[in-house]
Amino acid sequence: MTLHAVPPEGYRILREGDLRDYLAGIPAAATRLGGPPEGWSISEVGDGNLNLVFIVKGASGGLAVKQALPYVRLVGESWPLPLSRSHYEYLALTNQAKLAADLVPAVLHHDERLALVAMELLEPHIIMRKGLVAGTTYPAFVDHITTFIARMLFFSSDLALPAAQKKEAIAAFAGNHALCKITEDLIFTDPYRVAEQNRWTVPWLDATAAKFRDDLELHVAISRLKLKFLSSAEALLHGDLHTGSIMVTARETRVIDPEFAFYGPMGFDIGAIIANLLMAYLASSGHEREPGARRVFEAWVLETVEQVWGEFARKFLELWRGEAAGDAYPLSLFSGEAGAARLEAERQAYMARLFQDTVGFTAAKIIRRILGLAHNIDFELIEDPKMRATCEARSLRLARALMVDTASFTTIGAVTNAARTARDWQPEF
Amino acid sequence: MTLHAVPPEGYRILREGDLRDYLAGIPAAATRLGGPPEGWSISEVGDGNLNLVFIVKGASGGLAVKQALPYVRLVGESWPLPLSRSHYEYLALTNQAKLAADLVPAVLHHDERLALVAMELLEPHIIMRKGLVAGTTYPAFVDHITTFIARMLFFSSDLALPAAQKKEAIAAFAGNHALCKITEDLIFTDPYRVAEQNRWTVPWLDATAAKFRDDLELHVAISRLKLKFLSSAEALLHGDLHTGSIMVTARETRVIDPEFAFYGPMGFDIGAIIANLLMAYLASSGHEREPGARRVFEAWVLETVEQVWGEFARKFLELWRGEAAGDAYPLSLFSGEAGAARLEAERQAYMARLFQDTVGFTAAKIIRRILGLAHNIDFELIEDPKMRATCEARSLRLARALMVDTASFTTIGAVTNAARTARDWQPEF
Repeated sequence: MTLHAVPPEGYRILREGDLRDYLAGIPAAATRLGGPPEGWSISEVGDGNLNLVFIVKGASGGLAVKQALPYVRLVGESWPLPLSRSHYEYLALTNQAKLAADLVPAVLHHDERLALVAMELLEPHIIMRKGLVAGTTYPAFVDHITTFIARMLFFSSDLALPAAQKKEAIAAFAGNHALCKITEDLIFTDPYRVAEQNRWTVPWLDATAAKFRDDLELHVAISRLKLKFLSSAEALLHGDLHTGSIMVTARETRVIDPEFAFYGPMGFDIGAIIANLLMAYLASSGHEREPGARRVFEAWVLETVEQVWGEFARKFLELWRGEAAGDAYPLSLFSGEAGAARLEAERQAYMARLFQDTVGFTAAKIIRRILGLAHNIDFELIEDPKMRATCEARSLRLARALMVDTASFTTIGAVTNAARTARDWQPEF
Repeated sequence: MTLHAVPPEGYRILREGDLRDYLAGIPAAATRLGGPPEGWSISEVGDGNLNLVFIVKGASGGLAVKQALPYVRLVGESWPLPLSRSHYEYLALTNQAKLAADLVPAVLHHDERLALVAMELLEPHIIMRKGLVAGTTYPAFVDHITTFIARMLFFSSDLALPAAQKKEAIAAFAGNHALCKITEDLIFTDPYRVAEQNRWTVPWLDATAAKFRDDLELHVAISRLKLKFLSSAEALLHGDLHTGSIMVTARETRVIDPEFAFYGPMGFDIGAIIANLLMAYLASSGHEREPGARRVFEAWVLETVEQVWGEFARKFLELWRGEAAGDAYPLSLFSGEAGAARLEAERQAYMARLFQDTVGFTAAKIIRRILGLAHNIDFELIEDPKMRATCEARSLRLARALMVDTASFTTIGAVTNAARTARDWQPEF
């Protein structure tokens, strides 16, 4: 099923000059850029871990061109990764454009053989995580991101899709297993065992990292979450929905980079958002110029966490009440006033179960960023390593509670309260 | 993704004469049958709902030849059904032959275009359900069927398969959605609402059928089970594992007809076995010549129910302990003595969750046979309709408890006790 596990006939890694000639031959791209190709500026700016990203600007507009490499960029050719991820990213972007065109970059061109997608250039958007590190608040973010996740998850689920269509969608993304495997290893396994690629802020977190590697309650909890990730085909996930996959201005929000897309448990995407906000919150004191200088920002972050769940749940339920065309929970079993009331109670119970999943995945997404391979600038840009370790230790303390005592977190308020308590906790180094 | 939704080029419905010529051209078949083709006896014996089944006997051996029709045989051309089910049946049979060759018919030939599978003729095996109606006990059954389900479920799960391989297997069966849809409608929906195809023993069960159509607790419970059926890709299921899909002698057991195969929740297959045994038990008094004449048989059936779960769980756990090569529950997270003990406790907890699923699906499989379209000879062959209704009402009473109070059934003994109590209950008609 893997597409392009070996680079296909016709694939080549593009250089800036190649790209100019290539785009000149693509009418949609050339028109968007405008003017003669010689006048286009092209620069490779990829700062992610996997791909090439070119920014191309012409007389009348710009493009972002993303090309998959046959290996993990961060590591090199020793870690091969199928080009087919570009195919799945394009499939996901196409689906997202149908459901929330304002919240994703418009795709202008896809080249399956070159594993390349050309998109509108998002300007002056910045990666949200950079804004959060700087202490910027995004008042429109909650509304946008909750619309995005509610619509993506609902409309790909059994609540919205007939079973045949959903099974076909599952199959369409099943070949993206190499990207899923990265998640399975780096999020659900490695941070809890000795693994060459793990890293953490030494020496301060040495003891905590060792404790996490020995914490069997945590190991059972992460294993249950991993099993859910492996076997619950609830909805088409973005699969990597952290604040580095979101571009923002004060008024706009765009979700990018869905190359990890596959059918998985809904709580994984929601948990990704909440985890990254909680890390922004607990990292914030590390970026203070003076104590308390970022209190307003921090209050906004926690309020945002609460609203992300609250608004997501509200919008998801609204879709369920109004647009349920799927095979799950057939309306014919809940007719009349009593039926409608019972179904509504079950919708609430469904959301409570989804919240539990979300809490668990939130914890998993925090831990991997502190004890695993891939770290966040939220923490990495804290210059004083002991201060960084303090912020990270608070996050790990919160995450462990969320993962092991999940059942005791029945509301998002319980989560933000625990985050507040964690912020005030002083680890003993 | 649907294969052959329209009969493909080259498909034709075989008559007995066609089949003779056809098999004469298939060396594996002709050799097995032996002697000149003119000497082969051929008769169409299909008594299932969907397909043609031919028994072919020659000088030295026999064959069963199953051909899918492009519609539901029971209903006719007005209910089309894709021929691709033969493709999935063949895929499933091939997989089963690798894992439990002694417990399935050997496949000699598959013709994708004719939607045809030729298998060894099982002789003198009979359909187990017929034996159960006659009051026959099968001492080897528990061992055989628990080996079958433990191996099929374990080796297709995330406990045994690397994620990439499992995702490919999910995709390989995703196109079988027309067969899944039959289950979704006839088991998980129709018996709980007004549906043209429903039937039950009138007039005695009229009130119960009406109550089940209004029972909102039941509707929530069946909807949760349906959602699990739609979205939990735990293992490759047989998908229709009732006692009519099992052929037996005193010493042998063969599972047939896996055309409903797909990746779904494990409890569905285990529940199918248990449900059909419980129906055999509760129908038994309807087949008595004199009161109490079948007590020994009935005791055997209930003991078998207990052993089916017990032996399945024992064998499944044994496989997990010895042959876990999958991505779930990585051993590296449970190293050392304490780790091994914690993993073993989690295995038990996993089985307890699976048991809960099993109890729910058991109930679903009982209810559909009494209030839905497809009924069982266990009940249908009880001549006195009031007696039949009594046995059916007892089964429905048991099933409702299993489905709505699932959590209170924590052991298989609790299930068999409830079955005993149900047998003694006298409905008021």
